[in-house]
Amino acid sequence: MRKQQIEAYLNGLIPEKGLLYDAMRYSLLGGGKRLRPQLAMMAAEALGGTETDALCYGAALECIHTYSLIHDDLPCMDDDDLRRGRPTLHKQFDEATAVLAGDGLLTLAFSIAARAPLSSDRNLAAVTVLSDAAGAYGMVQGQMLDMTLSAESPTEDILEMYRFKTGALLRAAVALGCIAAGGKGDELEAFSQNLGVAFQLQDDILDVVGDEKVLGKPIQSDSKNDKHTVISVIGIEKAREWVHKYTDLAIESIAFLGEKGTALSALAKGLVEREM
Amino acid sequence: MRKQQIEAYLNGLIPEKGLLYDAMRYSLLGGGKRLRPQLAMMAAEALGGTETDALCYGAALECIHTYSLIHDDLPCMDDDDLRRGRPTLHKQFDEATAVLAGDGLLTLAFSIAARAPLSSDRNLAAVTVLSDAAGAYGMVQGQMLDMTLSAESPTEDILEMYRFKTGALLRAAVALGCIAAGGKGDELEAFSQNLGVAFQLQDDILDVVGDEKVLGKPIQSDSKNDKHTVISVIGIEKAREWVHKYTDLAIESIAFLGEKGTALSALAKGLVEREM
Repeated sequence: MRKQQIEAYLNGLIPEKGLLYDAMRYSLLGGGKRLRPQLAMMAAEALGGTETDALCYGAALECIHTYSLIHDDLPCMDDDDLRRGRPTLHKQFDEATAVLAGDGLLTLAFSIAARAPLSSDRNLAAVTVLSDAAGAYGMVQGQMLDMTLSAESPTEDILEMYRFKTGALLRAAVALGCIAAGGKGDELEAFSQNLGVAFQLQDDILDVVGDEKVLGKPIQSDSKNDKHTVISVIGIEKAREWVHKYTDLAIESIAFLGEKGTALSALAKGLVEREM
Repeated sequence: MRKQQIEAYLNGLIPEKGLLYDAMRYSLLGGGKRLRPQLAMMAAEALGGTETDALCYGAALECIHTYSLIHDDLPCMDDDDLRRGRPTLHKQFDEATAVLAGDGLLTLAFSIAARAPLSSDRNLAAVTVLSDAAGAYGMVQGQMLDMTLSAESPTEDILEMYRFKTGALLRAAVALGCIAAGGKGDELEAFSQNLGVAFQLQDDILDVVGDEKVLGKPIQSDSKNDKHTVISVIGIEKAREWVHKYTDLAIESIAFLGEKGTALSALAKGLVEREM
């Protein structure tokens, strides 16, 4: 239900005709867990608002998440050909279109948040959270760190990079939900911070396990696995322990919500057990 | 004085240490007419506000203008090596850094506008104007049109492209000044629309004349001049006429401002006579 509401909203955001809009739709509507909008909606409800209150902010964040994937996939960045089992945007269209579609989605996010059917103060707070999380002191900085780290970088540097690259948008998702419900935004910060670490570690584990299954070859045998992740330093068993540890910390931090925290706890548990 | 105020403000926006920030500073502080912030400040004063009221909004717009130049210069777009007599950002650093620095500047713009020392309502209106002008229904759409037009495209299509590509940000500059002064934003629309056309035509003329002077060869003899501009269709003399016609229209449209319109009129006249 929640996910259908998100899909329907995203589907109505961009016109259906025109090359630029086709490209934006291709990426925005190409599947995905919709984790960030869901987090925003659950956080809003946990704080006494409604899920619908947070829909626009969550959708704005999904546009930013999508743009970041498009630009990350570019030849000059990670140079990926596939995303969610389909050609990446620059493969399906071309590089110029991918750059512009990404730029368009990033910009659209601010238009959505500024026009959300909530008060000016809330919308303005949402714009601030979005720009801080997405920008040069948040996700973009994380992507920059990712480009400069090597397989020999110390664990602390890698964890720092995670905190910016994936952590910033996950924290923003929860903060946006809080703002939509009339909160300040930092009410569930311990939850989103710990969840962010668990999420990224699980991602890294799945990357390795996925490679093993699909490619039938041992870990770190190709350049892809040469990439700096915490796994290569602490090993996969320790990483699995950490995923559980950080997930537990996240769930404990929202004990004060009582029943209202059920959806968030369930989502956190689901992320630990996810296989893709 | 006005320009120094703008330079000082822009100079304080981005930290001095770190590769990403170095790249952002390289482009943002690499010169430029600062036309858009100046327009915003003049418009604010013309409507009874102060120039300083519009400084933040104007600076936000300059960040967006700078990001657009960085992305436009990329190899997959216009593939330019020089900008304002210096290596373009991807030549000075690398492509990935240029993509990210552009993304960072675009995002920063919304943070600046949202945090401007004006009311929530004005800041929110500014965010809306910025996102509409910069996004997929504004400048990004113009850049997309620019990529798809050819030297054979009809004049109307080229003028339409101008309206989006350069026109959108110039209109936004004036609208932001109006909003900073407490207006709705559309008070000086006839001025900014006509100014936008004159500005782009003058740019095209200077491109051609510049090439003639520097390269010592006739117009349209190289691939650069193969680019679709209105000049190749209507000729340079007619283009010069049009620049004057649209500038006059712009100036006439603000006659109602009386003395308060002096700075805007002078700027419009200056743009016609500019040689770079």
